[in-house]
Amino acid sequence: MVLEIIAIALLSLLFALVLTISVLRKNKGNEKMQSIASAIQEGAIAYLNRQYKTVGIFAVVIAVILYFTLGMITALSFILGAFFSALSGYIGMMVAVKANVRTAEAAKKGTKNALDVAFKGGAVNGFGIVGLGLLGVAGLYMLVGDPNLIIGFAFGASLVSLFARVGGGIFTKAADVGADLVGKIEKGIPEDDPRNPAVIADNVGDNVGDCAGMGADLFESYIVTLIAAMLLGSILYGPTSEYVIYPMIVAAVGIVASMIATFFVKVKQKGEKGIWSALNNGLIISAILSVVGFFFASSMLPNSTGIFLATLVGLVTTLLISNITEYFTSREKGPVKEIALASETGAGTNIITGIAVGLRSTILPVIVIAVAMILAYNFAGIYGIGIAAMGLLSITGMIMSIDSYGPITDNAGGIAEMSKMPKNVRKTTDQLDAVGNTTKATTKGVAIASAALSALALFAAFVQIANLSAINIFKVNVLAGLLIGAALPFLFSAFTMNAVAKSAKLVVEEVRRQFKDNGIMRGTKKPDYSKCVDIATQGAIKELMVPALLAVLFPIIVGLLLGPEALAGMIAGTVATGLLLALFLSNAGAAWDNAKKYIELGNLGGKGSEAHKAAVIGDTVGDPSKDTCAPAINPLIKVINTISLLLAPLIIAYGLHAF
Amino acid sequence: MVLEIIAIALLSLLFALVLTISVLRKNKGNEKMQSIASAIQEGAIAYLNRQYKTVGIFAVVIAVILYFTLGMITALSFILGAFFSALSGYIGMMVAVKANVRTAEAAKKGTKNALDVAFKGGAVNGFGIVGLGLLGVAGLYMLVGDPNLIIGFAFGASLVSLFARVGGGIFTKAADVGADLVGKIEKGIPEDDPRNPAVIADNVGDNVGDCAGMGADLFESYIVTLIAAMLLGSILYGPTSEYVIYPMIVAAVGIVASMIATFFVKVKQKGEKGIWSALNNGLIISAILSVVGFFFASSMLPNSTGIFLATLVGLVTTLLISNITEYFTSREKGPVKEIALASETGAGTNIITGIAVGLRSTILPVIVIAVAMILAYNFAGIYGIGIAAMGLLSITGMIMSIDSYGPITDNAGGIAEMSKMPKNVRKTTDQLDAVGNTTKATTKGVAIASAALSALALFAAFVQIANLSAINIFKVNVLAGLLIGAALPFLFSAFTMNAVAKSAKLVVEEVRRQFKDNGIMRGTKKPDYSKCVDIATQGAIKELMVPALLAVLFPIIVGLLLGPEALAGMIAGTVATGLLLALFLSNAGAAWDNAKKYIELGNLGGKGSEAHKAAVIGDTVGDPSKDTCAPAINPLIKVINTISLLLAPLIIAYGLHAF
Repeated sequence: MVLEIIAIALLSLLFALVLTISVLRKNKGNEKMQSIASAIQEGAIAYLNRQYKTVGIFAVVIAVILYFTLGMITALSFILGAFFSALSGYIGMMVAVKANVRTAEAAKKGTKNALDVAFKGGAVNGFGIVGLGLLGVAGLYMLVGDPNLIIGFAFGASLVSLFARVGGGIFTKAADVGADLVGKIEKGIPEDDPRNPAVIADNVGDNVGDCAGMGADLFESYIVTLIAAMLLGSILYGPTSEYVIYPMIVAAVGIVASMIATFFVKVKQKGEKGIWSALNNGLIISAILSVVGFFFASSMLPNSTGIFLATLVGLVTTLLISNITEYFTSREKGPVKEIALASETGAGTNIITGIAVGLRSTILPVIVIAVAMILAYNFAGIYGIGIAAMGLLSITGMIMSIDSYGPITDNAGGIAEMSKMPKNVRKTTDQLDAVGNTTKATTKGVAIASAALSALALFAAFVQIANLSAINIFKVNVLAGLLIGAALPFLFSAFTMNAVAKSAKLVVEEVRRQFKDNGIMRGTKKPDYSKCVDIATQGAIKELMVPALLAVLFPIIVGLLLGPEALAGMIAGTVATGLLLALFLSNAGAAWDNAKKYIELGNLGGKGSEAHKAAVIGDTVGDPSKDTCAPAINPLIKVINTISLLLAPLIIAYGLHAF
Repeated sequence: MVLEIIAIALLSLLFALVLTISVLRKNKGNEKMQSIASAIQEGAIAYLNRQYKTVGIFAVVIAVILYFTLGMITALSFILGAFFSALSGYIGMMVAVKANVRTAEAAKKGTKNALDVAFKGGAVNGFGIVGLGLLGVAGLYMLVGDPNLIIGFAFGASLVSLFARVGGGIFTKAADVGADLVGKIEKGIPEDDPRNPAVIADNVGDNVGDCAGMGADLFESYIVTLIAAMLLGSILYGPTSEYVIYPMIVAAVGIVASMIATFFVKVKQKGEKGIWSALNNGLIISAILSVVGFFFASSMLPNSTGIFLATLVGLVTTLLISNITEYFTSREKGPVKEIALASETGAGTNIITGIAVGLRSTILPVIVIAVAMILAYNFAGIYGIGIAAMGLLSITGMIMSIDSYGPITDNAGGIAEMSKMPKNVRKTTDQLDAVGNTTKATTKGVAIASAALSALALFAAFVQIANLSAINIFKVNVLAGLLIGAALPFLFSAFTMNAVAKSAKLVVEEVRRQFKDNGIMRGTKKPDYSKCVDIATQGAIKELMVPALLAVLFPIIVGLLLGPEALAGMIAGTVATGLLLALFLSNAGAAWDNAKKYIELGNLGGKGSEAHKAAVIGDTVGDPSKDTCAPAINPLIKVINTISLLLAPLIIAYGLHAF
C-alpha cells in the first residue's frame, strides 16, 4: 500500500511539473514588463537565499545536537524535513515570480485567461507541496517502518516553516507598510506607482511572504498532521498496523480529488462573482470527491464507519471555518461594513471597531473546533482526532492553489501598473486580486484551524509518548505550565509585531530620503529599488532569531524545570491562546483591509475622503497583524509540539522531579 | 476573634467618615467652580441611579432564582453582596464629586495642599470599601458560621461590580472619545474646554468609571478573595477552624497598616517626583507594617512559618506587579518612548508599536503569578494560594486611596480649566494628574493580578466543592471547556469594545450637531451639556446587558452540557486568557496615553506636530482598551468563578452525564 501512496505523491509532483511547463509556455509580455518582473524575481531570490543561509546555520547546529542526543535517524530526518520545507518554499516562489508577468499579459485577453495562468501558477505550489510532503513521509516510513522515528522530519519542517513565516512576514510587511506610509499617505501617489522606491520590495514581499511563507506553513501543517495521526495509530495499534497507513491514504485521496477538481476551475460568469464561484467549484468538487474516496478507504479498517465519520468531521470543519472567516472578512458582509462606517469618525474608531470585529470572530471557530474534537473522539477515540485533522488538511492541494493565485495576481497588477499597461488590464487584475484577498483570509482561517486540530493530535501523541495518564491542571506546576504556555503566543506576537514596526521604520526613512531628490517624484529619475529590498531583507533576517529561539527554548525550560505533565499543560495553553490570537489578528487584519477596499469602491466618500484616510491607517495596522503575526503563530504551535515530542524521553530522564 | 475583626472594619468606616468630614470642610471655591462641580455631580448621580436601577431588576430576578434553587440564606447573602457593592460605588463617587472642586481650590496654594485634599478624598473610597467588605464578610460569617453559605455574597458583589465596570467603562470612554474626537482633533480646542458640549459628560465619566467602577471592582476582588481563602480553610480544616478566621485577620492587619500609613503621605519634594514618592511612601509603609502584623497573626496557626511566607508571597507579588506595570507604562521608561518615537511615522506605526508593547508586557506578570502560585503552594498547600491572594489584596485600602486621588485631580483640572482659574492651578493639577495616570495603571495591574490569583483560589475551592479529584485536560470535554473558556474573554471584550465604539459614535454625532451652531465655538452660547450625558448614559445602559448575560450563561451551559470537570477546565481557560488580555489591553492603553503625554511635554515636536496627531489616535484606541475592556475582565473572571461555585451542586445533580 505504501508504494501506491508514493506513486500518488510522485503523480502530484508530475502534475506540478506539467503545470509549470504550461505556465512557462505562456507569453511573458513586452520588454518593460519583463524587466520589472526580473527585478522582483531577483529580489525574491536574493531574499530567500539569505533567509535559508541563516536558517541553514541554525538547522545544522540543531541537527548536531539531535545527533548526539537522539541519534542518527532523528538527525537525518530532521535535516530532510528542513530541506523539504525549504524546497517547497522555493518551488512556490519560483513559479509565482514567473507566473505574475504572464498573468499580466494574459489579462489583456480578459479575466478567464488571466485566472487560468494565475491559478495554474498557484496549483504548482499546491501540488508541489502535497506531493513533497506525502513523498517525504511515506518514503521515510517505508525506510524506517516506525512513525516514532520520523518525528524529526516534522520538527525540521516546522522549524524551517517558522523561519519562513516570521522572516517572510517581516519582509513583506516592512516593505508594504514602508511603501504605503510614504507613497500613499505622505505623497498621495497610488499603489504600485513606479516612482515609489519601495515598490519592488513590496512586490518581492508578496512572493516571499504570501507564496513562499504560506507554502512552507501549509507544507508543515500537512506533514506534521500526517505524522501526528500516524503516531497515534502506531501508539494505539502498533507501528505497522493499517491505522498507521490510513492517514497517508487520506492524504492520497485528497490529492487525487484535488487534481481532478482543478479541471473544473473555469470562469463562467462575469465579474468577481464568476471568479469566486470558479474557485469555489474547485473546493466543493474536491471535497465531494474526497468524501467518496474516504468512504472506500475507511472500509479497510475494522471500525470503518467511525473512522469515516471522523475523517468527514475534519472536512466539514474546513468548510465551516472557511465560511465563518468569509463572513467576518468579506466586503459584502456586516462586520467589514461596520468598520468602514466607523472610519467616518476617524482612524481611532476605525481601529476600535476592527479590534472588536477581530475579537468577536474567534468564538465560532473555537466552538466548531471544540465540537469537531468531541465528535471525532466519540467516533474513533483519540485516533479520531488525528484523523479529523488529516481530513481537514486532505484537500490542501486545492486550498493552496486557490490561495497562491492571489499573490500572483497581486503581482500581476503591480507589473501592469508599473509598466503602464492599458487600464482594462489593471481592472482585470484588480478583480482577481479582490477575490484573492478573501480567499487569502479564508485559507488563513483554515490554516489556523488545522494548526489547532493537528496540535491537539500532537498533544495527544505527546501524552502517550511521555507516558502520562492524565494532565491534571489542578496541580500547581501543570497550571503554571498552562499559564506560561498561554502567554507565549502573546510574547511571540509582540516580537514579530515589533520587528515589523522596526523594519518598516527603516524602509520609511529610506523612501523619504530618496524622495528628497525631486527628480524621483517628477518621474525623471529612477529610484533605487534594490536599496529598499536590501533594507527589508536585513531587517527581516535580524529580527527572525529571537522569536525562533523562544519557540525552541520555552518547551525545554518548562519541561526540565516543571516536568513533562507541566509541559503538556504548557502545550495546551499555547494551543488555546495561539488559536485565539491568530484568529483575532488574521480576521481583524483582513477586515481592515477590506473595509478600506469597500471605501475605495466609492462608498462613504470613496478614495481621498476622510473616511478613506482613516481606513488606510486601519489597514496599516492590520497588515502586520494578518500577514506577519497571525501566520507565524501556526508554526510556533507546531514547533513547540514537535520539539516536545522529540525531547520527551530526555525530559523524563533529566528533568527536575520536584513535582 | 471575629468581634475584634468586625471592630476593625467599623474603625475603617469611621476613619472614612472622619476623612469625609475633613474634605467637606475645605473651601469649595467660587460660584462658577461650584456650578460646574454640581453639573458634574448631577450627571454622575443621574447615571449611577439609572445604572443601579437596571442592575437592581437583574439582581432581583437572580435573587428569586437563587431562592428557589439554593435557599433563603444564599438569596439573602446575594442581595447583601449586591447592595454592599453598589454602596461602595456610591460612596467613592459621592466623595469624589465633592473633593474635585475642593482640590481645585486647594491647588491655588500649591501641590502639597491639593494632594492633601485629593488623597483624603481617595482614602474615603479606599477605607470605605475595605471597611464595608470586611464588615459584610465577618458579619455574615458570625451569623451563619460557615463560609459555604456566604458564597452568594461574593456572587452578588461580583455581578454588581461587573455591571459597574462595564456600564461605567462604556460611559466614561464614549464621553471621552466623543469629546476628544470632535473637540481636540476636528476643532483643535484643548481638553476640558467649556465650549465642548461633551466636556461635562467626560468629567462625569471619570467619576462613574474610574471612581465608582474601580471601587466596585476592588471591593469585589477584596471580598471574593477573602471568601475564597476562607472556603479553602473551611474545606481543608473545617468551617470553624482558625484557618477560616486567618484570612479575615490578614484583611484587618492590612487595614490598620494602611490607616497608619496614610499619615506618611506628605509631599516633601517639588514636582512629580515629590508626589510620586509621597504616594509610594504610603504604599511601602503599609506593606512593611503589614508584614510585621502578618508575622504575629500567623503565629496563631500550627504551620505558622509556611502561612506567614505564603502571605508574604502575595504582598511581594503586589509590589513586583506594580513595578513591572510602571516600567511598561511610565513616561520615563523605554516602552512609552518607543511608542512616542513610532508616532513620527504616523498613527499606523504608533498603534503597531503600542500593540507590541502591550503584548510584551504580559509575560513577566504571568511568570510572577505562576511562581507566586508555586511558592505559596509549597509553603502552605492549596490553602497557601488563597492566603497569597489575600496577602496581595491586604493593603487594598492604601492602593485604592492612591488610585482614587487620580480621577479627583483629573476632575479638579477640568474644573480649573472650565472656570478659567489661574494658569498655575492647572499646572498643579496637571502634575498631580500625570502621577495619577501612572498610579492608575499600576493599580490596574495589581487589580488584574489579584483577580487572577483570587480566581485560582476560587478554582481550587470549586474543585473541592464539586468533589473532583483532578481536572484532566486530556479528556476531550475538559479540553473543549478549556478552549471555550479561553475564548470567552475575547468575546466579552469584543462586546465591551464595540459598545464604546457605538456609544462614542452617538456622542460624536451629537457634539458635531451642537457645533454647527457657530455661537458655541465663538463662546457666545452655552452648549447643552446634559444632552451628551444622556446619550452616554443611554448607550452604556443599553450595551451593558449582553456581556453580563454572557458571564452568567456560559458557565451554566458548559457545566450542564459538558459536566463539572469541563466547567473547571473552562474556568482555567477564562482565567488564563482573561489575565493575558486584561494585561495587554490595560498596559497598551496606558502606554499609548503616556506616549501622547510624553510628546505633549514638548518632545518630538510637541503639541500640534504630526507625531502628536498620531499619538492622539493611539490614545483614542487605548482609552476603551484600558478603561473599559481590561477592567471589565476582572469581574468577568470572578462572576464565572462564583456562579460556578454556587451552582456546583445543581450542575452535579442535573447535568448531562455524557462524559
